[in-house]
Amino acid sequence: MLDVGKIRADFPILSREVNGKPLVYLDNGASAQKPRAVIDAVTRGYAEEYANVHRGLHYLSNLATDKYEGVRGKLQRFLNAAHEDEILYTTGTTMGINLVAYGWGMPQLESGDEIVLSIMEHHANIVPWHFLRERQGVVIKWVDTEADGSLDPQAVIDAIGPRTKLVAVTHMSNVLGTVVDVSAICTGARAKGVPVLVDGSQAAVHMPVDVQAIGCDFYAVTGHKLYGPSASGAIYISRDRQAEMRPFMGGGDMIREVTREGVVYNDPPHKFEAGTPGIVQQIGLGVAIDYMMGIGLDNIAAHEAALRDYAQTRLAGLNWISVQGHAPGKGAIFSFVLDGAAHAHDISTVLDQKGIAVRAGQHCCGPLMEHLDLTATCRASFAMYNTHEEVDALIDGLELCHDLFA
Amino acid sequence: MLDVGKIRADFPILSREVNGKPLVYLDNGASAQKPRAVIDAVTRGYAEEYANVHRGLHYLSNLATDKYEGVRGKLQRFLNAAHEDEILYTTGTTMGINLVAYGWGMPQLESGDEIVLSIMEHHANIVPWHFLRERQGVVIKWVDTEADGSLDPQAVIDAIGPRTKLVAVTHMSNVLGTVVDVSAICTGARAKGVPVLVDGSQAAVHMPVDVQAIGCDFYAVTGHKLYGPSASGAIYISRDRQAEMRPFMGGGDMIREVTREGVVYNDPPHKFEAGTPGIVQQIGLGVAIDYMMGIGLDNIAAHEAALRDYAQTRLAGLNWISVQGHAPGKGAIFSFVLDGAAHAHDISTVLDQKGIAVRAGQHCCGPLMEHLDLTATCRASFAMYNTHEEVDALIDGLELCHDLFA
Repeated sequence: MLDVGKIRADFPILSREVNGKPLVYLDNGASAQKPRAVIDAVTRGYAEEYANVHRGLHYLSNLATDKYEGVRGKLQRFLNAAHEDEILYTTGTTMGINLVAYGWGMPQLESGDEIVLSIMEHHANIVPWHFLRERQGVVIKWVDTEADGSLDPQAVIDAIGPRTKLVAVTHMSNVLGTVVDVSAICTGARAKGVPVLVDGSQAAVHMPVDVQAIGCDFYAVTGHKLYGPSASGAIYISRDRQAEMRPFMGGGDMIREVTREGVVYNDPPHKFEAGTPGIVQQIGLGVAIDYMMGIGLDNIAAHEAALRDYAQTRLAGLNWISVQGHAPGKGAIFSFVLDGAAHAHDISTVLDQKGIAVRAGQHCCGPLMEHLDLTATCRASFAMYNTHEEVDALIDGLELCHDLFA
Repeated sequence: MLDVGKIRADFPILSREVNGKPLVYLDNGASAQKPRAVIDAVTRGYAEEYANVHRGLHYLSNLATDKYEGVRGKLQRFLNAAHEDEILYTTGTTMGINLVAYGWGMPQLESGDEIVLSIMEHHANIVPWHFLRERQGVVIKWVDTEADGSLDPQAVIDAIGPRTKLVAVTHMSNVLGTVVDVSAICTGARAKGVPVLVDGSQAAVHMPVDVQAIGCDFYAVTGHKLYGPSASGAIYISRDRQAEMRPFMGGGDMIREVTREGVVYNDPPHKFEAGTPGIVQQIGLGVAIDYMMGIGLDNIAAHEAALRDYAQTRLAGLNWISVQGHAPGKGAIFSFVLDGAAHAHDISTVLDQKGIAVRAGQHCCGPLMEHLDLTATCRASFAMYNTHEEVDALIDGLELCHDLFA
């Protein structure tokens, strides 16, 4: 098991107060806090080792380039990709999925072709496909979740028809905490010759990920949720799918030669990475990955499983609260509404007065909220640095809300 | 005038050594170093004030959102945009121009429509238009520079034909230092009903920019060249052009409502900003803009003009060097080749041994290099913190190269 006290001491922000109370940060589903090692790497990146990458032949440029490019191998190991060039740098999952939609989907999908999505996808894994629907007549097929919030892999596989060109599905719901059996989906989809994109924004934060074992074609992660800097990120894209893609953004670095007449593109992964990138952010992401792997992804998962169990037990004791999602093996993410008139936003405001940061709203999941027949929920989402005491603080805060609003 | 010693003290990296010599950083055209105020803002952003933006109702999220959104007004004032919502956040010029190419160009331009570019554009202002050529038959019309590296505005205006839908031109060449009279180009283009995109990557670093006075439709800047964090940036897009654009990337924040059936998009500028953005980077960019404006954009320009004059004089004394670009009023950017066999890369390597960082290569300007009939140049590019002594160090280094390679 991990030493949560030691970990907490690594995160400077966790020692601050909010509204006169110790910060209880339970908004990790939106973004995670950063350990000192990441912050220091960013500071050092700017204060001592900064230059543009891939462009100089001078010391600082070479140093920055080595550090920046070195993160690709870390991400390869983190996701267990077969090849380092299957890791493409992005500014996060949103850019990663748009890269796939524009670079792979747009040139290949025709009117009437289908994309299969689950109803609990995040807008980042919906809107890029709606673009293809709006712009070129692609059809989106939705697969509903079960009553407990789980997603039946067979239902996804069964939704694949002769016109289906892609399955795009989350690995862990940011609202329900549901962990999806993406491996089973990939096996079924592969048998039908259909590629699978997995949105790993949440899952990669909370469990070991092995893209080879999953058998997916695309796996997107976002650095700011992985304890890394904002606007850092990556997407795994298999060599086979990369070979089918055209470039997304155009500019420096992604070209071999540019003339008046045309462009010769660079080899992957650079072909898909245009312009001056998030140099220092990616370096910081590498340190975050090192930090997570140093603690151990299994240890993180075990700690969070214990938090989940404890929170589930405590929440079950409140008979005036409705938790959304009870899928077996779910992550430590709890979306809920309080019986009675209390709006999710009012609850989050009361909790904030107690120093407890949760999120209220649709959580970028419009179709799921429609499916659940809810306009908004409150969400408490845990990370490796959260404690049982913070679960207690949440419960105390909710009891106060119940007293205030019931 | 500015106090260059005081400014240098604000940039931690400038006190370091490279290869046992004091760093002489003359690679500002590729990227600028960061003042302590920016680095501290980034550190504080992660260590004390971090949360996702636009998404919470808790203290840290509101704090981060206020700081992040507050940068828009700073950029508005920096570029003198008429409206704050004409400032769209990007990760830099490459993303900004791709946003225009995908969001404005792709849905509007048809086969045979023309885009007018100057021959000295950076690949970031070429490759996105080559995409439109490759994918939908748009024609690129090139306007050559004059022998001294200047660009005749009338030549650009004359290149506009009945099928021309856009002029895209740099405000300052990153190779030649040429400052383009973009105001004259905009006046001529407007008379013909053609919008103008200005690549301000270099210019905004070195001179005051007034997009209303220029009269352009699009003006792209990149934060990492403006003494800000990597992957920060913005593009000015007039309200009229925004109204003609469709969204570029899809995801959270850029929507008002997402259902199974479709999307209702958010209002600008958010419509064009998908997903979790570069929160801390943009906050850092705001501090960089404050820093520049605190020193005074005119003061920066005057200091760099003095550096340019001094460097021109000193370089003119070396009769074995060919400086590319002598346009009147050029910026403090000097690309050159040495007579004889010395390759630009060898020169930069020798200079690096003396602690002098310059860049060698094509500088992401393939068509210009072809026009100049050069395969590569060395480039020394100055910024507000450079000194006359650093010009001397460069000259000493070049004399050493001449001795070694002549």
